[in-house]
Amino acid sequence: MVKASVIGATGYAGVELIKLLCLHPHVELMYLTSQSYTGQKIQDVYPHLRGFIDQELKAQNIDEIDAVSDVVFLALPHGHAVPVAEKICAQGKKVIDLGADLRFRDTSVYEDWYHVKHENPSLSMKAVYGLPEIYRDKIKDARAVGNPGCYPTSALLALYPLIKEDLIDLSTIIIDSKSGVSGAGRSAVITSLYGECAENMKAYNVGKHRHTPEIEQALSEVAGCAVYVSFTPHLIPMTRGILTTAYAVLNSKGKEADINRLYQDYYQNEYFVRVHPAGVWPQTKWVTGTNFCDIGVAVDSRTNRIVVTAVIDNRVKGAAGQAGQNMNVMQDFPIMPGLELVPLYP
Amino acid sequence: MVKASVIGATGYAGVELIKLLCLHPHVELMYLTSQSYTGQKIQDVYPHLRGFIDQELKAQNIDEIDAVSDVVFLALPHGHAVPVAEKICAQGKKVIDLGADLRFRDTSVYEDWYHVKHENPSLSMKAVYGLPEIYRDKIKDARAVGNPGCYPTSALLALYPLIKEDLIDLSTIIIDSKSGVSGAGRSAVITSLYGECAENMKAYNVGKHRHTPEIEQALSEVAGCAVYVSFTPHLIPMTRGILTTAYAVLNSKGKEADINRLYQDYYQNEYFVRVHPAGVWPQTKWVTGTNFCDIGVAVDSRTNRIVVTAVIDNRVKGAAGQAGQNMNVMQDFPIMPGLELVPLYP
Amino acid sequence: MVKASVIGATGYAGVELIKLLCLHPHVELMYLTSQSYTGQKIQDVYPHLRGFIDQELKAQNIDEIDAVSDVVFLALPHGHAVPVAEKICAQGKKVIDLGADLRFRDTSVYEDWYHVKHENPSLSMKAVYGLPEIYRDKIKDARAVGNPGCYPTSALLALYPLIKEDLIDLSTIIIDSKSGVSGAGRSAVITSLYGECAENMKAYNVGKHRHTPEIEQALSEVAGCAVYVSFTPHLIPMTRGILTTAYAVLNSKGKEADINRLYQDYYQNEYFVRVHPAGVWPQTKWVTGTNFCDIGVAVDSRTNRIVVTAVIDNRVKGAAGQAGQNMNVMQDFPIMPGLELVPLYP
Amino acid sequence: MVKASVIGATGYAGVELIKLLCLHPHVELMYLTSQSYTGQKIQDVYPHLRGFIDQELKAQNIDEIDAVSDVVFLALPHGHAVPVAEKICAQGKKVIDLGADLRFRDTSVYEDWYHVKHENPSLSMKAVYGLPEIYRDKIKDARAVGNPGCYPTSALLALYPLIKEDLIDLSTIIIDSKSGVSGAGRSAVITSLYGECAENMKAYNVGKHRHTPEIEQALSEVAGCAVYVSFTPHLIPMTRGILTTAYAVLNSKGKEADINRLYQDYYQNEYFVRVHPAGVWPQTKWVTGTNFCDIGVAVDSRTNRIVVTAVIDNRVKGAAGQAGQNMNVMQDFPIMPGLELVPLYP
Repeated sequence: MVKASVIGATGYAGVELIKLLCLHPHVELMYLTSQSYTGQKIQDVYPHLRGFIDQELKAQNIDEIDAVSDVVFLALPHGHAVPVAEKICAQGKKVIDLGADLRFRDTSVYEDWYHVKHENPSLSMKAVYGLPEIYRDKIKDARAVGNPGCYPTSALLALYPLIKEDLIDLSTIIIDSKSGVSGAGRSAVITSLYGECAENMKAYNVGKHRHTPEIEQALSEVAGCAVYVSFTPHLIPMTRGILTTAYAVLNSKGKEADINRLYQDYYQNEYFVRVHPAGVWPQTKWVTGTNFCDIGVAVDSRTNRIVVTAVIDNRVKGAAGQAGQNMNVMQDFPIMPGLELVPLYP
Repeated sequence: MVKASVIGATGYAGVELIKLLCLHPHVELMYLTSQSYTGQKIQDVYPHLRGFIDQELKAQNIDEIDAVSDVVFLALPHGHAVPVAEKICAQGKKVIDLGADLRFRDTSVYEDWYHVKHENPSLSMKAVYGLPEIYRDKIKDARAVGNPGCYPTSALLALYPLIKEDLIDLSTIIIDSKSGVSGAGRSAVITSLYGECAENMKAYNVGKHRHTPEIEQALSEVAGCAVYVSFTPHLIPMTRGILTTAYAVLNSKGKEADINRLYQDYYQNEYFVRVHPAGVWPQTKWVTGTNFCDIGVAVDSRTNRIVVTAVIDNRVKGAAGQAGQNMNVMQDFPIMPGLELVPLYP
Repeated sequence: MVKASVIGATGYAGVELIKLLCLHPHVELMYLTSQSYTGQKIQDVYPHLRGFIDQELKAQNIDEIDAVSDVVFLALPHGHAVPVAEKICAQGKKVIDLGADLRFRDTSVYEDWYHVKHENPSLSMKAVYGLPEIYRDKIKDARAVGNPGCYPTSALLALYPLIKEDLIDLSTIIIDSKSGVSGAGRSAVITSLYGECAENMKAYNVGKHRHTPEIEQALSEVAGCAVYVSFTPHLIPMTRGILTTAYAVLNSKGKEADINRLYQDYYQNEYFVRVHPAGVWPQTKWVTGTNFCDIGVAVDSRTNRIVVTAVIDNRVKGAAGQAGQNMNVMQDFPIMPGLELVPLYP
Repeated sequence: MVKASVIGATGYAGVELIKLLCLHPHVELMYLTSQSYTGQKIQDVYPHLRGFIDQELKAQNIDEIDAVSDVVFLALPHGHAVPVAEKICAQGKKVIDLGADLRFRDTSVYEDWYHVKHENPSLSMKAVYGLPEIYRDKIKDARAVGNPGCYPTSALLALYPLIKEDLIDLSTIIIDSKSGVSGAGRSAVITSLYGECAENMKAYNVGKHRHTPEIEQALSEVAGCAVYVSFTPHLIPMTRGILTTAYAVLNSKGKEADINRLYQDYYQNEYFVRVHPAGVWPQTKWVTGTNFCDIGVAVDSRTNRIVVTAVIDNRVKGAAGQAGQNMNVMQDFPIMPGLELVPLYP
């Protein structure tokens, strides 16, 4: 049994983590922290958990957490995870940060986009970017994992085989992403109100979203050269789900069937990536509540562009589920425990 | 291992059943039928199931089904289940019908409300109404179970302790239910279109809904006398979930705390019924994707009325989940297999 | 031309008022106040208004407002309207308060339910409850109007003919209301977030909602005796719309056709009330964006109960539209100006 | 007064047209046809229209329609409008077709994409593409107008100034569109059910959607050379609204402020196009129920791409509203009659 704790347990990421860890046969949940609800029971804050868990939410006491935990999940606002991660790693424990603080090898990029000073660049240097389908081997040996952002997870899985195989003109990548509202978390802000989001859509942070450099870091590593992308996020009236549509010009004439087969091959051993047959376009509901990333691919022969769509549940594969997947990799568990989830459809 | 088959596998009830049976450790799925999709793979019709199942949908051949099955689930339009159930029972196999055909002991009531002749009243006489929280003992020994309707499940669990304890004036019961759109199934009808349902509400079949006599049959049995209720169903812009608000006048002055305790006591051994503390009103999302029925109770002392709300996922506790629960009872399995589901929240 | 001002212009009530007043051929909009957005242009806060209005939001200066206005609309949190209304009336101007402060003749009832001391009971005594279909004559001569709450508007129009004609047992009234989320206004609170409301329903404030005494005040006046009701509000995943289902036992056997005709007769001269034929149940979308209240009626002969459903757009007939309707009555305008709105369907 | 008729009055396009024409001060509605509801009153099919109109739906009798109409709107499935339009034009009446049959100058393109033989290419040659912001002068003199598709309306208004000014590399245009479900009309199909669309998103017809050649036809005319685009439509869980995100590489370094000013200039006399300041991204709700197209523009200097988003209500500017706007142009009416609509927000 692995002893796991969650710091920041009452945000949407935290509560999703608790759900998965409750179901995990090899995990014991040790310590849950919450600033807003200290002293309350988690099942009083989230009554849907009644019957599954009976724990009090505590203040964040790192020493206590260290003392009882093997793995610590951090679900904190960016800028707050570094000092915590530092201490945990120093005690020889493992840390998986669901925020952005450990995602960047070059912390100056982080600082440029997040407008926060990074307090421990060397920790970030050693941390591993937690996308198991690309970085599994490194994750196995990592002490600190920077769990990917929701948009980057979908964009990277959509583009990885193309770049790895050098099939596209790297200057032509456009990533148009559509996200459900839960991506903004459980903060009480006007822009996340039902009345503002329902029956409504918008683009936001066009050309300026912080997930842009995260996508570029990984794509550049795979390509072996600097890659820049145009990334546009959109807010969609649904709670869970991201659909990313990625475009690029093929280096040479490509056939849809060949490209589809390439994707099938690339992900054949990846349980959580399902490549659909040509002509089938994945729907976000096909992955709701699960850790799957479903992919569809087409070649638009009129323009010689490839179009890839990837859908994930932003709260699972885009956050808590991937964190659980990373823990399973780090602990050398099989792929499934805690993640045997059938999508909720309809 | 129990060998189970599903007749009518591609409606919303059928596909939910498949999901649960796929997860069930003691069940082997043998035979799936579909009229509309005969010959196709279930995972091509419902791609969210890809990776969980790989079966072809077959035409309905009762002899073949009988030959390979221990338990057969029927998810057919009303009026079509009786001849099938008849044959299956005749072979000594068990049948759980998710439609209305086996729900009524008095088939003349069925015929009045469903405008269909019942072809085997004696089968219906022997069948058991599959609400385990009230009829568990009978279900254990049943060969044929009439799985309850979605509205009745919520209404009966809301009212059962009150009537059993003779606390209310039976002539004052009002049941105001609100249902998500999936209750209408997956039929291509204009009234179920997104454009007609989103941002919209309506009452329908006021005073005439077919679940009325089903509710009355069970309440009358519990009360030991004929009970009539006013039942109004409403259509709400959401996919899953029923919230039933039940009203009745108390026979004598009641205290909220006492009534709440009564409910807690009544359901303390029922894993799937969660009674919330006084002042907490259950939300349908607290049970989404699960077999739970969450209950809240208040006494309105100004009018001496009791108000009870019960929420269920109409596709799970209101249909497939309850069918699975019934199978577990009939097979003497523990309560949980196939139903260890944490609600999807948010 | 009437000179109108809005105090509290940037909440959902305020912005709806502005929309209607912009369209009103006999109104000049003079002064808009906002605490949160003082100094900004209203069309920068609400860009959908671009092209319709070009005004700066000002701090609340009653003397300035008085100097330029004939009618002042108040859209303030309860407890804040009395001193403002006092001053405006003292200057001989007219005031329409969209909050609760002027709705009660007996301010002790207000104080019991709102937990606020009422600072000017005599002003409240003279104010008129602004439901034109019942109180039109008084509204004509009023200086101060307490615009009804959203739930009471729907409940009172549903029950008025029955009580006026003494057709029901007054002790049996149950009002089960379902409201869209915009009823909670534009406040940044967790319970109004998209992720908390979408695909979700709940009852709330059962037996305790502040609209209860407001409904009872009007019903008691019509009945000529004290009437108590059970009122249960529910939150529904949609932005606009209330559907109220009202139940009562008929004093004698009633026929559906007769009752329907009664409703038709009662409201035949009320442009904004549309009574549908027997068997037709109004949908909230049939009134979206308009000042209509659509009504359906049935007699449940099995229980001798009458069931009435009434739908309104809670932001229009339930708030701003009714305020405009009241202004038209007070100014002796025809019924339509500013309210010639065709519902948005689908 | 113009005498107007609608052929195909009970689809979503037809009913929206009726709404607008009811409000139009210079239009008399003469003749409404419906295949499915012949003989019924339009207000019985669409009760939200009760009080606004009282007309019987008739079978399609072209001679009768011709005899009483000045302008005829066609809202028919593609392939059905040509013979009707032919007759109407032959009688010297004007026709506005909301389908695709008259949108193409080169009917072989139409035939390739729609898989239908075009029965009157010369009629199509003379017809005018009804996008007033680009083709106003031709529309003035047209007898037959092919009203644009919903996606093309948003895409063309988004791209027009860039191409007209030769600012972009024409080979780099990507159009990623997101549409509400009402775009699929009121057909009873499974893919449009609430349960299939809510909390769900997907791309569809990738690289193959019929609006592609329509967009290319207009862009090519503006550019003076053949333009090919990648166009991907997506289905979004909302009823009304399209958001189109268009991407292209700038021919030379561009500044956001300059580009924004260009758009402001281009559309300054177009009442229905609202260009928002740099950094403001239009939301579909800002135009709900209206004929507006709201536009936002950014230059992504890292990639030298321009990103434009345009939002419309697909049922208004994307269909019926634009048809009304075209009628106003053809009749030399002012811009506004029938279209003085304030958006429904929230």
